[in-house]
Amino acid sequence: MQQITADLVQQVIQPRPTESHKGTFGRVMVIGGNQQFGGAAIMSATAAVYGGAGLVTCATDLFNATSLHAQLPEAMVLAATDKAQMATLLPKMDVIVVGPGLGTDTWGQTVLQQVFQQVQPQQVVIIDGSAIDLVASQGLTLPQAQLVLTPHQMEWQRLSGIAIADQQVACNLAVQQQLQATLVLKSARTQVYLPNGTVWENTVGTPAMATGGMGDTLTGVLAAFAAQFKPLDQAILAGVYTHSAIASELAQQQYVVLPTQIARQLPFFMQEQARRG
Amino acid sequence: MQQITADLVQQVIQPRPTESHKGTFGRVMVIGGNQQFGGAAIMSATAAVYGGAGLVTCATDLFNATSLHAQLPEAMVLAATDKAQMATLLPKMDVIVVGPGLGTDTWGQTVLQQVFQQVQPQQVVIIDGSAIDLVASQGLTLPQAQLVLTPHQMEWQRLSGIAIADQQVACNLAVQQQLQATLVLKSARTQVYLPNGTVWENTVGTPAMATGGMGDTLTGVLAAFAAQFKPLDQAILAGVYTHSAIASELAQQQYVVLPTQIARQLPFFMQEQARRG
Amino acid sequence: MQQITADLVQQVIQPRPTESHKGTFGRVMVIGGNQQFGGAAIMSATAAVYGGAGLVTCATDLFNATSLHAQLPEAMVLAATDKAQMATLLPKMDVIVVGPGLGTDTWGQTVLQQVFQQVQPQQVVIIDGSAIDLVASQGLTLPQAQLVLTPHQMEWQRLSGIAIADQQVACNLAVQQQLQATLVLKSARTQVYLPNGTVWENTVGTPAMATGGMGDTLTGVLAAFAAQFKPLDQAILAGVYTHSAIASELAQQQYVVLPTQIARQLPFFMQEQARRG
Amino acid sequence: MQQITADLVQQVIQPRPTESHKGTFGRVMVIGGNQQFGGAAIMSATAAVYGGAGLVTCATDLFNATSLHAQLPEAMVLAATDKAQMATLLPKMDVIVVGPGLGTDTWGQTVLQQVFQQVQPQQVVIIDGSAIDLVASQGLTLPQAQLVLTPHQMEWQRLSGIAIADQQVACNLAVQQQLQATLVLKSARTQVYLPNGTVWENTVGTPAMATGGMGDTLTGVLAAFAAQFKPLDQAILAGVYTHSAIASELAQQQYVVLPTQIARQLPFFMQEQARRG
Repeated sequence: MQQITADLVQQVIQPRPTESHKGTFGRVMVIGGNQQFGGAAIMSATAAVYGGAGLVTCATDLFNATSLHAQLPEAMVLAATDKAQMATLLPKMDVIVVGPGLGTDTWGQTVLQQVFQQVQPQQVVIIDGSAIDLVASQGLTLPQAQLVLTPHQMEWQRLSGIAIADQQVACNLAVQQQLQATLVLKSARTQVYLPNGTVWENTVGTPAMATGGMGDTLTGVLAAFAAQFKPLDQAILAGVYTHSAIASELAQQQYVVLPTQIARQLPFFMQEQARRG
Repeated sequence: MQQITADLVQQVIQPRPTESHKGTFGRVMVIGGNQQFGGAAIMSATAAVYGGAGLVTCATDLFNATSLHAQLPEAMVLAATDKAQMATLLPKMDVIVVGPGLGTDTWGQTVLQQVFQQVQPQQVVIIDGSAIDLVASQGLTLPQAQLVLTPHQMEWQRLSGIAIADQQVACNLAVQQQLQATLVLKSARTQVYLPNGTVWENTVGTPAMATGGMGDTLTGVLAAFAAQFKPLDQAILAGVYTHSAIASELAQQQYVVLPTQIARQLPFFMQEQARRG
Repeated sequence: MQQITADLVQQVIQPRPTESHKGTFGRVMVIGGNQQFGGAAIMSATAAVYGGAGLVTCATDLFNATSLHAQLPEAMVLAATDKAQMATLLPKMDVIVVGPGLGTDTWGQTVLQQVFQQVQPQQVVIIDGSAIDLVASQGLTLPQAQLVLTPHQMEWQRLSGIAIADQQVACNLAVQQQLQATLVLKSARTQVYLPNGTVWENTVGTPAMATGGMGDTLTGVLAAFAAQFKPLDQAILAGVYTHSAIASELAQQQYVVLPTQIARQLPFFMQEQARRG
Repeated sequence: MQQITADLVQQVIQPRPTESHKGTFGRVMVIGGNQQFGGAAIMSATAAVYGGAGLVTCATDLFNATSLHAQLPEAMVLAATDKAQMATLLPKMDVIVVGPGLGTDTWGQTVLQQVFQQVQPQQVVIIDGSAIDLVASQGLTLPQAQLVLTPHQMEWQRLSGIAIADQQVACNLAVQQQLQATLVLKSARTQVYLPNGTVWENTVGTPAMATGGMGDTLTGVLAAFAAQFKPLDQAILAGVYTHSAIASELAQQQYVVLPTQIARQLPFFMQEQARRG
């Protein structure tokens, strides 16, 4: 198992090219947020914007539109159930996050199935939270795409069938390779399983991160990084590290670190890395 | 009467264990917030999140969902009158706050009664504000649980029958022991009556705290502390002190201290205590 | 004409008594905010809360409830057209602000008339903006109360019949004495006409204050000061000065000063004055 | 091609006259924001307020009213489709921004046509985003007014018929002169074509600005500057520079700069320029 280092992050986060425009830095769509868990989609979209994605759209229950825009007018919003708009916009996306606050009821199932039907092979699709649970419980086939799965250990148990106690690297790797997806297995020490079969361990992080919404924020960071940095493998590794490294910095002074605090720190942390790289 | 000291707080707030996840730090549900008093539930939930509770849900009039999420996407939200969801989620909670902004009309009564019916003995239930008034006016029986009552002096008069002028320690203690609840009796110098019969006095605080919503914020602090720290007695004492100590610090520079300002300071104050402990 | 000085403000803003509670610092109701001008009521309520009023309620078009609570959960909210609630709550208020964002259409007229009918002689009633225009255009009789009128020069022209060019002290004083109200006549150099016939001039202020919402914020400051400090005359003078003095401080670094920025600075400015007094 | 310099900006941004009121600094209306793109109108209005416009109204889909007021109570709001209110208010405006988040569907078309019908020759009308696309696709005649067009290169291609690769100064100038409008042609190095035939190049800016909403914010800055500073040509040049100069300053520490961060910095940057001028 290899370790994700600050060096790697600094190689990934390069100064932006002078001749660029918002399209250069990618289009991200965050899909999720039912009435109960709307905050999750907001936190993901917030991290995507502060993480530097060029354009961010949040497809959600419109119940969440006002609270999203009250804090993040930078994002666009649409009803996740609006088939016409989704069919128009989804193909234009570089990166899709599906799952934060999606829930597992009929609404979430309907949204997830439509997304899976429309996803295209060249798109990066980050599948999180409820979406992972739905794949497991409904036996859904993962779409052809550049997949990134971000389960915590219990979600991974449900999806992989490997009990938490048995989630050793070799077992995880075998299932991940079958799934043909990048696996970001979240825990106190998150592991990343890449399509090339290498396995990476996050070396930073803090128990101050153990609070609701932290995983939602991670999906936004990963989306922003995937939208801006190539290759995807490096972008994901750097995103995982960045999310935890910011938390560790904030935890110097904070007993608990809120997910939205991490998002707001992204532009500063990223600029430091770009300088050092 | 014993005094709550900084030493006690520093013994309670320990550095978080490295091997932990959000479940380690407890599930809190704040129940309250009708259309008029929605801010009270928001302030309680805000303090619970910033105070480090692992997962916070706010069960409220959905009228308040957008304003909650506009400032605190970290919390989940549901309709307090949704019997099915409440029946599913309430049993999973470690700590329940009921009362902030609940109101005393039919809506509040209905919500309170359902909560009391579903509470389980091992749960910590913090009963505040309108909920205390309803218990008094409706003659409700308190549920079997680890109860914490947080009345101010007028609410305590209504509940206990002891006029404010007569609220001496001995009288208060007698009724509190009958109620089999922790009593946090709020005043310019708040007193805490523990189930073991000891009585504690808060030694910090400032008149800059005398503003609407301060008690709602206290419930969120107590909930976060009860969710993270054991035993409950110590957690409550430390929470009472922390709430006032932050206010006193802010009051060095502020003529009035807003409840949400205290909430946002919690992560910093708690980290200082964890360092010193 | 006398000048309002920092000395006067420091005599008014005294350190808070240790034995106090939120009731000590008064109950304020801000009445206003139709759908178009909802921000005005929000800004007034915000200044009232940050200015130290013990309890603040905003009676408004409920259309504004969510945006209010999204930034100020400390305030309570109710529908200004809810006759039953208004009849219950208005008599409990120490200070009433009516006018910010009220508008002059039927909704505003209805609300204003009900307020005027219910006001009681001992209450401080601050009449601003649209409410002044309505008094002028509808020929409404001012209620028996401790009245404070806060017109800018054009509103004063409409109410008093004195053209702006003719608004000399003697003329203004004559009408103000007839109205039996404190007159805060807003301009680049605001004047205050007290019931005792003395006239005061504000000596601070900056053109950086010339932006929409500044007057709404002033009503909130005046309400908070009237709720906390006696006698009323001194509270009004100190409030006028404080509002402008904070703006002048911020204008050292800002080309324009936003009304909500002044509100958020109130606790700090007031504490400085209390220290010096 | 001439370069916009800091000197020019410092000549434009003069200290405010002492004898002034909010009317002195102009009335701005931002028209835009359908349900999907409501954030665009919010960002434009935010920049207009922080940029010092005296009074700012946002005419939008009322779906956006709450999220606007949750962060910017300083602005007024109305339904862009309310013909009566629009007919009353539009003629009172000094500067109109139409386009941010307007969209190109029927709603946007209806709003744009009504605005074009009511605009008066002396008004400054800033036409942005969807409004430019609608002019191009619907073959709308531009109204008689002091027009400012703010297309990015693709929008300019649609409007002018000049392919991006062919957008040389001479070609652009020819079309701009025909349109009798100021042209702000946005790119990594924005150009400004004035009615007098001079062409100016922005000399500051950073790729950290390449993110969604940056152009919406620019419209608000231009509106605020046009409302306060004369002549219009100089105001537009100074506005373009200011928007980018703030971004460049923030980009010293930030990898990406959010549009709302630029807006909030306006009062500070403008005061520095006024001091130096």
